Amino acid sequence: MTDTYSYLGPAGTFTEAALRQVEAAQGQDWRAVSNIGEALGDVVAGRSVAAVIAIENSIDGGVSVAQDALATIPGLRIIGEYLVPISFVLVARPGTTLADVTTIAAHPVAYAQCQGWLNAALPAHHHLPASSNVQSATQLLEVDEAGNPASIADAAIAPPTIIDHYDLAVLAEGIIDNAAAVTRFALVTTSTAIPASTGADKTSLIAELPTDRAGSLVEMLEQFSTRGVNMSLLESRPIGDELGRHRFIVDVDGHINDERIADALQGVYRFTSKVVFLGSYPRADRQPVLFDERYSDAVYREARAWVAGLLSES
Amino acid sequence: MTDTYSYLGPAGTFTEAALRQVEAAQGQDWRAVSNIGEALGDVVAGRSVAAVIAIENSIDGGVSVAQDALATIPGLRIIGEYLVPISFVLVARPGTTLADVTTIAAHPVAYAQCQGWLNAALPAHHHLPASSNVQSATQLLEVDEAGNPASIADAAIAPPTIIDHYDLAVLAEGIIDNAAAVTRFALVTTSTAIPASTGADKTSLIAELPTDRAGSLVEMLEQFSTRGVNMSLLESRPIGDELGRHRFIVDVDGHINDERIADALQGVYRFTSKVVFLGSYPRADRQPVLFDERYSDAVYREARAWVAGLLSES
Amino acid sequence: MTDTYSYLGPAGTFTEAALRQVEAAQGQDWRAVSNIGEALGDVVAGRSVAAVIAIENSIDGGVSVAQDALATIPGLRIIGEYLVPISFVLVARPGTTLADVTTIAAHPVAYAQCQGWLNAALPAHHHLPASSNVQSATQLLEVDEAGNPASIADAAIAPPTIIDHYDLAVLAEGIIDNAAAVTRFALVTTSTAIPASTGADKTSLIAELPTDRAGSLVEMLEQFSTRGVNMSLLESRPIGDELGRHRFIVDVDGHINDERIADALQGVYRFTSKVVFLGSYPRADRQPVLFDERYSDAVYREARAWVAGLLSES
Amino acid sequence: MTDTYSYLGPAGTFTEAALRQVEAAQGQDWRAVSNIGEALGDVVAGRSVAAVIAIENSIDGGVSVAQDALATIPGLRIIGEYLVPISFVLVARPGTTLADVTTIAAHPVAYAQCQGWLNAALPAHHHLPASSNVQSATQLLEVDEAGNPASIADAAIAPPTIIDHYDLAVLAEGIIDNAAAVTRFALVTTSTAIPASTGADKTSLIAELPTDRAGSLVEMLEQFSTRGVNMSLLESRPIGDELGRHRFIVDVDGHINDERIADALQGVYRFTSKVVFLGSYPRADRQPVLFDERYSDAVYREARAWVAGLLSES
Repeated sequence: MTDTYSYLGPAGTFTEAALRQVEAAQGQDWRAVSNIGEALGDVVAGRSVAAVIAIENSIDGGVSVAQDALATIPGLRIIGEYLVPISFVLVARPGTTLADVTTIAAHPVAYAQCQGWLNAALPAHHHLPASSNVQSATQLLEVDEAGNPASIADAAIAPPTIIDHYDLAVLAEGIIDNAAAVTRFALVTTSTAIPASTGADKTSLIAELPTDRAGSLVEMLEQFSTRGVNMSLLESRPIGDELGRHRFIVDVDGHINDERIADALQGVYRFTSKVVFLGSYPRADRQPVLFDERYSDAVYREARAWVAGLLSES
Repeated sequence: MTDTYSYLGPAGTFTEAALRQVEAAQGQDWRAVSNIGEALGDVVAGRSVAAVIAIENSIDGGVSVAQDALATIPGLRIIGEYLVPISFVLVARPGTTLADVTTIAAHPVAYAQCQGWLNAALPAHHHLPASSNVQSATQLLEVDEAGNPASIADAAIAPPTIIDHYDLAVLAEGIIDNAAAVTRFALVTTSTAIPASTGADKTSLIAELPTDRAGSLVEMLEQFSTRGVNMSLLESRPIGDELGRHRFIVDVDGHINDERIADALQGVYRFTSKVVFLGSYPRADRQPVLFDERYSDAVYREARAWVAGLLSES
Repeated sequence: MTDTYSYLGPAGTFTEAALRQVEAAQGQDWRAVSNIGEALGDVVAGRSVAAVIAIENSIDGGVSVAQDALATIPGLRIIGEYLVPISFVLVARPGTTLADVTTIAAHPVAYAQCQGWLNAALPAHHHLPASSNVQSATQLLEVDEAGNPASIADAAIAPPTIIDHYDLAVLAEGIIDNAAAVTRFALVTTSTAIPASTGADKTSLIAELPTDRAGSLVEMLEQFSTRGVNMSLLESRPIGDELGRHRFIVDVDGHINDERIADALQGVYRFTSKVVFLGSYPRADRQPVLFDERYSDAVYREARAWVAGLLSES
Repeated sequence: MTDTYSYLGPAGTFTEAALRQVEAAQGQDWRAVSNIGEALGDVVAGRSVAAVIAIENSIDGGVSVAQDALATIPGLRIIGEYLVPISFVLVARPGTTLADVTTIAAHPVAYAQCQGWLNAALPAHHHLPASSNVQSATQLLEVDEAGNPASIADAAIAPPTIIDHYDLAVLAEGIIDNAAAVTRFALVTTSTAIPASTGADKTSLIAELPTDRAGSLVEMLEQFSTRGVNMSLLESRPIGDELGRHRFIVDVDGHINDERIADALQGVYRFTSKVVFLGSYPRADRQPVLFDERYSDAVYREARAWVAGLLSES
């Protein structure tokens, strides 16, 4: 029996490239869906054991829809993260040349990332916004009943792997402005089993500040800094009820099995019970977490034993 | 002689509604442009004295393109902020009924904000992404050479004011899911003159953490908290050079003419010289800033006078 | 069978007045000793179940010898504190008048506390330092083999209760300069049983800063402040090995059975394992400890249960 | 014309040894007085340009009477500090042997420092408390009208230099228990001229916590720690009005001419206006003050210039 993994399809997307890195998913069923909400819906409904979703981009930052979904859909957990380098090619129907291109279909984020090249190479182009790069690229090949092209676009921005799946012509390669662009993907499930600690882990949570202590973000963040815990990501997202109210997405270095992380989580919870634990999981870069020895598990255990000893005597 | 103000047009946009709130702009030239970059470009090039741009939305959070532009284009200053309540209507060519609607043109952000209503009222609709709501609405009225509709959309999501300018039929009103939605706009200029302190002010800045002290965000934020300065906004945006490196957009309550703000700014600068002062300006809500008396100007002046007195004696 | 309590005697001392406040000591054996070291020695050797010693004076501060003994003698615990108002009378052999007084015997601390009155009433007096006020007062009544007064003093400073025990003449009352003077006494034992929490408790400890982080006192004290724990006493005492190295005597509001105190103690221990828990015991003033509700036991338990729940699922 | 310097005499005291280290005092008039109060009284009254007083002892800690005098006598300033190693000899009238010694005269502090040796060598001795070691030693040589010794003591504890001035026999040398004992002396004046910064300086102050924020000691101390300023001494002394109210004596590394120190002093003053600046002066050990470069004068000046630039433009 096989497990099903949902991902933003169709084949050839960066999300699929991320899914290829998920060891447990190899040889299983891969279910291509059309957006992050659908992928997470599969997981919640049990149609899939897990979904791969983009959560952060080195150029554009946090993926809002992913962050908002993780904050508001109960029971989701991140159990892995994967990095995929981002690059783009300009594709068209076979036979098309660069000089033929007037209208370019592209997801707004991809379009923005290729601005420099587009303005230089095709200064007079028009942009046709698309909700999926791969989808708009494949639409270039579709025809209507009369045999005319279904899309009004002449070309599309797509990941290089597109040509593994579709018979498209590559008009230009490496058109992304920032060659170091990378996207971070999360493997999301509803299982509450936490991946074992590896010494190179990350813990994610989402928290709202208590309403009666607005502006006390620093106090919440100090729960980590006073325990020697490094924060690798802090993003804010509007809660949506009124301007100025935010929830915060926080990634810290370490695993909930680490004493200092468990202690910091308790500190955060005491500060605000509106906190969602998103998971502890191995870092994609496998870099061991460094921290001051005074926050080690051994030191925590000794301190707890000391106080327990004092209390047990009475 | 009149001054020119740039804004995201065409007439009928929320940005135009914000510009209507700018007292100095009344009776001046209003220049409609097609995106935020163009608006700021006008200001930098001197084609306009100021531009109004959306910078934060109560549903979607910070406007990334605005934040990134303010962070990277030198010499920009915010001199005012304005709030515009957001609501949407569904418009179509006169004669169209709701039952006729299959394809809906909308900017992805507006589309996302109307999901609930759309799924209930038009479960089988298709979405045609647009780069401008007003523009896609007006395109409903355009015809090609053959006299056929130029747009493949049947309807568009647009601000209610659209009907003041165009002959469109309103198929549904109040279709936004969150009736309290509001967008914050900034009036941006290149003048370094800082608006006078009003007692109800906000100060905005953008800062990068020093590279050699990654993760020290808390320490930077403490520059404000230890001086009794409340932070009303903290957003992070990727710097773009590598995953995990961010700059932070910070709004705090108070004016650079307030001693505690000037002192906190110095503290931030000592922490990181990669800091951009975006301006001090009156808060849109005109709520006076409250703070502990021990951080008042008088207390600051007394303390400075005390130390100055000690030093002058020697 | 009776228990023995050691105290700085002889009868009539302020320490005896403190011992009178110790409920458990009523009807037991009271053993008068000549100094604090002897009193604590009785406790350590098992000759007494407890000792009452002066530990703080509202005029002179911490009693160094008591603090140093508590820091260096292992196994001592404070189980109660008692306040005794301090006042002094000037006593002499019956028949002596104020005009006859030239030399005044007094412990240096008592002498210092009566400076104002002495300089006004007896400007030409001499001071004979004594190691015990009551003892030097009683010596006024002793005679040598020849029948001459054994003491060269004409008068002595003593507590008012001296005349309950000895046939001395009171030359002047209320001679202490500060009428509000009060001394704090501790009931010290070697039992590790901690008095039950009363809601109006104090916890005492003595800690050394780690040698490799000199100057980090603030960081240690933050273990309390970040948990809403108020510190009512902070005294430093030289460790003695080199100038500038101190240990710190700390009293905080609360009981080790309070979650926030137990948590803070763990924090201190992680910071420095050179910490001595001196005890949790009812405050002499019986004032309930006030603290922010977010540091309540319930909040601590909820936070711990939350993290425990997360961990148990994995 | 010569200047007068007051010190705790008579000749041979440790204070005199400290005065010998004061360069400006060489060849001037040295005025021996009998206690610290008298020495400071000379300075206040203008009888002396400065006084040398003991302020801290590596064994016994802060000298309470000195700390209280500096806190309560207005207008005093410390302009130098000096370290004197402490050692003691046991002296007696010529002809006396150790076996003859029954009663030993000694200041209680000196007596306490020699406990170990005394208990080992003279277990059956009696202690005659004295207000001055040197004085009680010299009294050994005095005789009354009948030619009998004026003192009932057989021996006295005194500094080794005593034999440079008096014809006393040394019965034992090096009798202090801690061979590393050292006392810190301050040179005190009423001049408000602050000694020039040397890069190896210390700044002393005395502060009371504001009455309405009891327990906020940590917040005051953070004024230093958040500016990278190391605190080398923190002592508390009762204010005297009620138990539990203290003032704090603070020594920090650095000079008021250092930007970070001046800034920290302003922070302290904003926190509590009940603060006394006792002076900035060269450290006795001449060790250069080390601090993080980000708190350097240059960084402070740049930050101030940045904000000044922003303000001047408006």
